[in-house]
Amino acid sequence: MRILVVGASGTIGKAVVEELQGENVEIIKASRSNSDVSVDISSPESIRAMFDEVGQVDALVSAAGETHFGLVEEMTPEQNQRTVNSKLLGQINLVLLGLNSIRDKGSITLTTGITMDDPLVTGASAAMASGGIRAFVKSAAIELPRGIRINTVSPNVLEESSEKYGSLFVGYEPVSSKSVSLAYKKSIYGAQTGQCYYVY
Amino acid sequence: MRILVVGASGTIGKAVVEELQGENVEIIKASRSNSDVSVDISSPESIRAMFDEVGQVDALVSAAGETHFGLVEEMTPEQNQRTVNSKLLGQINLVLLGLNSIRDKGSITLTTGITMDDPLVTGASAAMASGGIRAFVKSAAIELPRGIRINTVSPNVLEESSEKYGSLFVGYEPVSSKSVSLAYKKSIYGAQTGQCYYVY
Repeated sequence: MRILVVGASGTIGKAVVEELQGENVEIIKASRSNSDVSVDISSPESIRAMFDEVGQVDALVSAAGETHFGLVEEMTPEQNQRTVNSKLLGQINLVLLGLNSIRDKGSITLTTGITMDDPLVTGASAAMASGGIRAFVKSAAIELPRGIRINTVSPNVLEESSEKYGSLFVGYEPVSSKSVSLAYKKSIYGAQTGQCYYVY
Repeated sequence: MRILVVGASGTIGKAVVEELQGENVEIIKASRSNSDVSVDISSPESIRAMFDEVGQVDALVSAAGETHFGLVEEMTPEQNQRTVNSKLLGQINLVLLGLNSIRDKGSITLTTGITMDDPLVTGASAAMASGGIRAFVKSAAIELPRGIRINTVSPNVLEESSEKYGSLFVGYEPVSSKSVSLAYKKSIYGAQTGQCYYVY
C-alpha cells in the first residue's frame, strides 16, 4: 500500500502519518518544505510536478490548505481568494490532477472542518472552503472511475491546536489527533465513498 | 422597499421579480445585459460599479452564477475555475463588496442548488459552489453588522427549465418557479438569518 500524504508536516498530517505506519505500507510525505516531496497545492503546476515525481499510489490523503480568518464586514475578495486557492481549489485540484495517479480501487481523503456546521465569528471563509469540498466529494463519489473512492474528514479543533486556536474555538470540545487520524484510516481501508466523517 | 435583483433576466430571476412586484416596492434589475443595470459578477470591478450606480438598497437578491457541468475524470482546473469565479465567488463578492450598500436590517439572499445534496453525474463543480455558499451564508449570518440578514435558496430543477436540463435531472421532480420565488420572498420579508431554504 503506497499512501501519499499531502500536508504531512501539519498537526493533522503528522498524526495521520503516525497512525498509518505499518508493515507493507509506504508513506510518501508531501508538504511545502521538509518532506519527501515538496508541493504548494495553490499551484496546479506544483501539483502536477508532485504527481510526476511520486508516481502511482493507492491512497491520496490531503491534510493541507490555508484559510483566511476575518470578519465578513472587513474581508476583501483578495483575502477570501487565499482560502479559495489553497484549502478549496488546492484540495480539489489534487483530485482533478491526481486521479490518473491513483490505482484502481484506490482512495482519496480530503480535509474539511467543523466551522461549516458550527460557525464562529471570522470563520466564514474557512466555512466556505469546507462546505464546498464536502459537496464536491459527495458528488464526485458517484462518478469516479476504476472503483476509486473519495471521502472527507471534518475535524473539530485538535487538542494539540487548542493552545494556538483556543481563543477562536471557545466552548468547542477539542478532539484528540488519534480520533482524527482514525477517520482518515477508515476512509483509506474501508469501502465507503462520498462520506464526510465528522470528528466532532 | 428597494430590492436589487442580480440575475434578473434568468428563469429564477424573472420569477422572483414578478413575485416581488407590489406597491411601495422598487425593483432594480441587474444582469449581464438587457436590465436596468449591467453587471458581470465574475468581475469584482463590475460588482463595485454596479453598487456605485445603484446606491442603497433594503434587499439584495442574487439568482446569478454560471457553473461548469462535466465529469470529474475529464474536468480541468480551468473549467472548474469558471464555476468558482461566477457562481461561488461572484455571489460571495456581492456580499463582500455590497455590504455597505445594504441598509440597516436589510437582507441578502443568494442561490445554491439541489446538486449539493442530491448529486448527479457531471454536477461536482456546481455542487462545490452551492456547498460553499451554503456554509459561507450560515457562518456570515452570525456576524453581519447592523441587523443585516443573509440566507440562501436551494432550488430543485424548475418546471420551466426541465425541457432544457431534463436529461441531466432524470427522476428529479421539477418545482414551480412560484414555489422557488416564494422562498426568496420569505428570506426578504421574514426575520430568519443563516438559513438555507430548500425547495426540493
